[in-house]
Order: sequence, then C-alpha cells, then structure tokens
Amino acid sequence: MSTIRVTVWNEYRHEKQNEEIAEIYPDGMHEAIAAPLRTQPDMEVRTATLDEPEHGLTDEVLASTDVLTWWGHMAHGEVQDEIVDKVQGRVLDGMGLIVLHSGHFSKIFRRMMGTTCNLKWREAEEKERLWVVEPGHPIVDGIGEFIELEHTEMYGERFDIPQPDTLVFVSWFPGGEVFRSGCCFHRGRGKIFYFRPGHETFPIYYHRDVLKVITNAVRWAAPGEGPMPVFGNAKPLERL
Amino acid sequence: MSTIRVTVWNEYRHEKQNEEIAEIYPDGMHEAIAAPLRTQPDMEVRTATLDEPEHGLTDEVLASTDVLTWWGHMAHGEVQDEIVDKVQGRVLDGMGLIVLHSGHFSKIFRRMMGTTCNLKWREAEEKERLWVVEPGHPIVDGIGEFIELEHTEMYGERFDIPQPDTLVFVSWFPGGEVFRSGCCFHRGRGKIFYFRPGHETFPIYYHRDVLKVITNAVRWAAPGEGPMPVFGNAKPLERL
Amino acid sequence: MSTIRVTVWNEYRHEKQNEEIAEIYPDGMHEAIAAPLRTQPDMEVRTATLDEPEHGLTDEVLASTDVLTWWGHMAHGEVQDEIVDKVQGRVLDGMGLIVLHSGHFSKIFRRMMGTTCNLKWREAEEKERLWVVEPGHPIVDGIGEFIELEHTEMYGERFDIPQPDTLVFVSWFPGGEVFRSGCCFHRGRGKIFYFRPGHETFPIYYHRDVLKVITNAVRWAAPGEGPMPVFGNAKPLERL
Amino acid sequence: MSTIRVTVWNEYRHEKQNEEIAEIYPDGMHEAIAAPLRTQPDMEVRTATLDEPEHGLTDEVLASTDVLTWWGHMAHGEVQDEIVDKVQGRVLDGMGLIVLHSGHFSKIFRRMMGTTCNLKWREAEEKERLWVVEPGHPIVDGIGEFIELEHTEMYGERFDIPQPDTLVFVSWFPGGEVFRSGCCFHRGRGKIFYFRPGHETFPIYYHRDVLKVITNAVRWAAPGEGPMPVFGNAKPLERL
Repeated sequence: MSTIRVTVWNEYRHEKQNEEIAEIYPDGMHEAIAAPLRTQPDMEVRTATLDEPEHGLTDEVLASTDVLTWWGHMAHGEVQDEIVDKVQGRVLDGMGLIVLHSGHFSKIFRRMMGTTCNLKWREAEEKERLWVVEPGHPIVDGIGEFIELEHTEMYGERFDIPQPDTLVFVSWFPGGEVFRSGCCFHRGRGKIFYFRPGHETFPIYYHRDVLKVITNAVRWAAPGEGPMPVFGNAKPLERL
Repeated sequence: MSTIRVTVWNEYRHEKQNEEIAEIYPDGMHEAIAAPLRTQPDMEVRTATLDEPEHGLTDEVLASTDVLTWWGHMAHGEVQDEIVDKVQGRVLDGMGLIVLHSGHFSKIFRRMMGTTCNLKWREAEEKERLWVVEPGHPIVDGIGEFIELEHTEMYGERFDIPQPDTLVFVSWFPGGEVFRSGCCFHRGRGKIFYFRPGHETFPIYYHRDVLKVITNAVRWAAPGEGPMPVFGNAKPLERL
Repeated sequence: MSTIRVTVWNEYRHEKQNEEIAEIYPDGMHEAIAAPLRTQPDMEVRTATLDEPEHGLTDEVLASTDVLTWWGHMAHGEVQDEIVDKVQGRVLDGMGLIVLHSGHFSKIFRRMMGTTCNLKWREAEEKERLWVVEPGHPIVDGIGEFIELEHTEMYGERFDIPQPDTLVFVSWFPGGEVFRSGCCFHRGRGKIFYFRPGHETFPIYYHRDVLKVITNAVRWAAPGEGPMPVFGNAKPLERL
Repeated sequence: MSTIRVTVWNEYRHEKQNEEIAEIYPDGMHEAIAAPLRTQPDMEVRTATLDEPEHGLTDEVLASTDVLTWWGHMAHGEVQDEIVDKVQGRVLDGMGLIVLHSGHFSKIFRRMMGTTCNLKWREAEEKERLWVVEPGHPIVDGIGEFIELEHTEMYGERFDIPQPDTLVFVSWFPGGEVFRSGCCFHRGRGKIFYFRPGHETFPIYYHRDVLKVITNAVRWAAPGEGPMPVFGNAKPLERL
C-alpha cells in the first residue's frame, strides 16, 4: 500500500472574518477536512491556504502532492494565474483534484472544465438529499442510498459543466431544484471529482458521510502508474 | 428550414508565404472549405482570417454566426486572448465550433477542452484511413465504412483531450499509429466537433468525403432552441 | 425534407378495462401520442397495439418504421419474444425507439439496456418538475428550463440503466426523490430515448411540452444515412 | 486489503481437440490466465469450464465469485441460458466481469451489451499494437504507451457495442484496421471490461503486459461497498 500525499487547500478567509463561521471551523475548514484524512493509514496530509506565499502551493508542495482538495469562495479572483497554470499542469500530469462546493467557481475548476461552471443558488438553510445514481462506483463505498444534510445552501441546475465521465450523485432540494452533485472527470492523466456539499455557515465538513465520500474520492483520484505519453514528432513504428 | 450562418475562419498565412501551398489553395484554405457549404440551400457562408481587424471576428460577425469553423497552425499565438474570450462565450451560448486538423493546438480549442490537446505527429505523406465507429451518428451521413486519404500528415495517440461525448472516427496510419480523429463534445449550450483531416501541403479540402463530413458537422453543430439557463440567486419554486 | 415514418405502439389494455382511464384516453393513449405527430409535415404516423396479430408489428410494419414509440405497463409479459427479437434487430439496424414511462420495464427496453431497468415508484398524484440539464440538445428545442406536471406517478433513483450517452432531463418530486427522466442512448445504428412522463390515470399525453419533447425525440431518433457496417471475415486493405 | 475471489472461466474445447493448441496451453487457457493471478497476495483464484456440471458455475461458485473472467469461442451456443441468467444477475449485483477476445460473441457479453457485438476478423498472424488512449486509468498501471503482440488474429471496426463508459485501448493492425480493444462499462452495480488480446493458436496469455492488464482489470472490477439499491413501491421521504 503506497502512501497518498494529500494537500488540503482552503481560501481561509470566511473563518477569519466572521465570528459565527469561526465558531464552526475554529482552525479553518481545511483542518476539518484534513482531520479524517489524517487518520487514514495510507494518507499523508498537509494543508495550504490562500494567504501563504504562493498560496502555499510552491513548486515543492505541488510536486509532492498526489491529490489536492480545493475550497474557495469569496476570493477566487485573488488566486494568481501563475499558480493556476501550475496546478492545471500537475492535474494533467496525474495529480488528483477534489473540488468542493463553492470551488465550482474557482479559476482552476473553470480552467479544467472550459465552461462557466455557473449554477443557481439560494441561502435558505434548506435540506439536501444526495442520491447515489451509480452504486458500483468506489466513491460511494460505505454510503447508503442517499446522504441527507439538514441545512445547506441550495445549488440548482443548469450547472454549466461538461457532461461528467461518471455522474455519481444527484441532489434534491425542498425548494424544487435538482443538482448533479457528485461528478467524475478524467483530464489528461489526472482525475477530478466535484462534490457539492459544504458551506461556510454549516458544519457540513463534520458529517460522517461527507467525509467518507471525500476520503473515497482521494483514493479514487490518486495518480496511477499508467504511461507518461510522449508528444511531438514521432518516428514511424513500421516501415513506410 | 432555417438558415445556418457559417463563418469559415482561416489563419491564412501558409498560403501567402509558400508557393506550393498557394498552388493548392490559391484563394486560401478557407475558400476551399467554404465552397461546398455555399452550395447548401440551408447555409449562408462568409470567411474571416487572422490578419483582418479583430481577426475578422468582430462582435457583429460573432453575434451573427451559428457555426464557426477553425483552421490555424503557425500563428496560434497571434490570436488575441480577447477574441478567444469572445469566441468561447459564443460557444457556451450555443454557437457551433468545428475545429480542423492543426486547430487542435489553437487557443480556442485548448480553452474549451481544459487540456494540452497535444499529440504525436509526422510529416511523411502517409495514407490515413478514418474508420467510422458510430455509424448511427448524423455526422457520417453519406459516408462509407471509412474515408481514405492518400497523403496526409500523421497524428497519433495519446491525443490529450477529455474523452469525447461521442467518438465518431478513429484513424489508422501505416506507420503504426491510431488517432481519435472525429470527436463530438457538448460545452455549455454549444456543440464542438474536432475533425482531423487537412494539412496545408495536401489538397485534402477538395476531398468529397472530407467536405461531406464538414457539411454534416455544420448541421449537427448548429444551435438549437433549447432553454437559455438562468444563473445566480434563485427564489424557491416550492414553499419552504 | 424526407418523411419520418412513425409507429406509435401501445399496450392498450388499461383504456379498455378501466372507465376512468377510458375517459381520459377514449381512443387509447396511442391516439393521444399520435395526434400531434400527425400534424407534422415531415411525419407519417400509424399505430399498433398489443392485441393485434403480431402486436401490430408485422415484418412489413417494422420494415417501414423509422421510429417506434413504446408504451406498456400491465402486460409486458404478453409481448412475444419473437417480436422483441425483431424490434431489437430493427433498432440495431437504425430504427429509432422512444420508450415512454412504464415502458422502462418492457422486454424491449430491458433487452436493449442489459440491466433490470428497475426503479422506485409511488402513486400519490405528486407534482413532477423535469429540469433540463443539457440545454444544447435538440430534444429540448422549444422547452423552457423545466417542465412541470401537476399530478404524476413518482419514479425515483436508483434507476438501474447503463449511464446514458447523454442525460437530458432530471426530475424532482416533492416526496424527496430525483430521477434521470430523459436519457439518450446509441445502440447499434439506432438511437433510443427514454422519457419518463406519462401515466394511464393522468392526462399527461395532452401536455404541450411532453408532446413537444416526443416530437423532437422522433426527429432526433430518425435513422441517418451512415454506413451499414460489414461484419465477419475481412480481407486486408493493406499488403501484409 | 480484502481478498478478491476470482473465477477464471474457459470453454476449454480447442485445447482438448487440437494438438497444436494443446501444446501452447497444455492445461487449458484458464490455467495460463489463472497463473499470474494466483501469485497476487490479494487474490484467490479458481477455474471453471464449460463441460463441468452447470459449466462449473453453480450457485455456490457464483455467490462466492467477486470477479469472473470469460473466454469462449466455438461453443457459445452450448452455454445454458439459465446459467447466463444467473451470471447476468450476479454482474448487476456487483460481480466484476472480464470478457476476453472471442468472448465478444458470448451469450453473456451480448446480453449485457444489448447489441450484436459483431466485428470484422481475419486470421493472418498479424501484429497488433494496442495504444493506451486513457493513461490515467488504473487498468494501464505499469503499461507503456502501447502493447505489441507479434502474431494475432485481427479484429476490426465496426465493433457493434454501446459506446464504452471509458475507452482505454485502441488497436492498430497492419492490414489497415483499428479496433476499440479495451473497453470499460458499468452495468447495474457491476463493472465489465472487454479486452481483445488472446487467441487459441497464439501464446498470448503468457505475454507480460496482457497478464498485467488482466490483473489490473480484476482489481478495477472487484465489487465495491456502495449501496444496494431498494426498488419498488416507496414511501415518501417528505410530507406530501
């Protein structure tokens, strides 16, 4: 069993600016997300945040990250394009990327998707029920037919993303909306999982099932040992 | 039958700089590509090229384009980012995009895909045989089991694109390579078709089947009348 | 504009056995479904029902059908396997197939999918809201962001089908469920569209949007003119 | 690390009827396929063959099989429909299925696909080069950019299968054909991998890379611990 090196990235602004949020996530959402991963025998976990130099994503950190999780919301625009370029490059080389909740609007997710990643939203403390539509997928190991979250922000379709390679979760909201809330993509040699749950004003990153899915997703997105493609001018393999 | 407004875009540099290429395409590749489209009763065709102001893609032109075809090669870097932004926006709003041959490395295609779009290549005047793998797709109407091109540049896998929504053609080359050479994508409300054939030094855009596929692809990629999604803050549709 | 020959198939038992249903559909659901198609200038429409000889699907009828729509519920088991074989063969050859509502459990749909096609259901006269998740698809031409049906039977996930080639609609129900309610599949040279709306005890096949989607789906599923593949022993195309 | 219980199924007729084939596979192809799997610390391997009672696939065997590999060719018709029913049921419940080479025409594969699974073929001892088109997929762990087999039977497109959920390999043949030779499908809770290499008259199941892919595929196809869906009449989860 080889070790998966996880970097949990967080914008880490809401928690510092808002007392109520700080009460829910006193050490930042990144620590809540990192905590259960740290207990996994096959994972090595560190965190990185926006206001660190290079957003905590130096060349050394990126080069030694197998899976990067991403939470951002109010400061997407402050993420430097140069860092986004590097993260994109690493994903295409094989690094896994788990994009959480409002990360749908991050530069890196929009860059990887090629679309606006726009959606409908509403803050009304609504219930969310995430239905598993692909029960054979490893990301739902140990999950029941659905996950229920008592109070969430609503996200609704149309979610402007490319059709996922595999759609794993579809969410129901009492206000009348649905949402593709667990979406797998292959991009380059890398795997990307978008997972909707998580809002700064609710203790969602303490929910057993949400953490279980993130943990499963880290394992699913970990880089494999497939070939590193050779690009460019190529000699013929057969006599012409 | 409503009219499809097609804009055939061409870099139009090789033809002006190289005599042999100018002999093959005396009016530029764009005119060769446009010619058969002009004969279609349901199409209205114009052309645009790199060295025109705004690359010929003014707001007026883009707003009145239903399907844009794109050929570029030696000057991808000269396409202004601002124009790429606008083209991307129009595709997401519903404009069809047909990317031809070396257009795989254009800013607009890489932007829409989120990947490097890199590949293997070789100029050895090789034969190409494009096999139809999805015979029920409208893009292959009127095409046989394969298309054969006597002299082409080779493109080989790994082609670094997201898995297409529908894979229509797979190419065979005598040097030992294969290539996913006809690929359909939905992005936003728009449809994108990548089609490999076409090289500046071969008269490929006079080939009956190549032109037939491009003509079919224009019809397939034409915008529909589906809903224009509403994004942003949304009131509940049900009583909360 | 070539003519699409449509055969609207209906089990036609509920309407003959239940007075309330007969009041809603006095000539059978097939006539309600056929009516708007008959007004299309590019369609030629006939109907067929279970209790006709060969279920109305003789070799002549099948050979001259471009798109077959299918509604069945209480008598799936009475459809002869020999007819199912023939319908499957025609779909693989290119005939379109539109499977409606309880047709999810028909022999032909289960045969084409390879799965149980099972689901959750409930008869509680619930509202259904079908959200468009792929607004660029021709099947949603002329449809808004969603379709609302006041009283329906509920179908809920897990819907045991292969992941659709394109997912077009996702349904919301007030009881807390979601459902992939508009699903496109390519099988052989044929196209299949599963569309959920429609129950014998509700006048759903008079709803403008439901009929619009069925009409669009008939056009989308109509056979193309792509190649008829040649199978079996093949001589080499190149010198070995 | 939990143990994966593998059953390697083989028709086992060619090896008994033809001396040359018996020389290549003295204990049957199943033993060649089983051998490297037996060396894996996380696998428990047994074999089953056509001429055993119930083809070696009793209820007990099926119930205790996590992944079933399938090789058949000359006697597909002798596999009892009742056993095919049971295997299909087990796949839908989560058992992995690896279909090898001429198994494309087996009852079970055609049943799972819903299509003819027909293709072109030729016995001319041709080379095959399998190109990896999805280098991030776990099935190609430890594989280079392509696998080369010196002498094979040719299979060519059109391969009449549904578009795979993930296309992993595309093959090149010197006679001018291409083939989708490594194809992943989800069906029910089960995963299916079709892998082309393998012919009774060539020692292909001793090839390092072929065996590596089969080993990887067994791990990929092993059942997960996702939810067992509940089907049928469902009480509402919300107050109606």
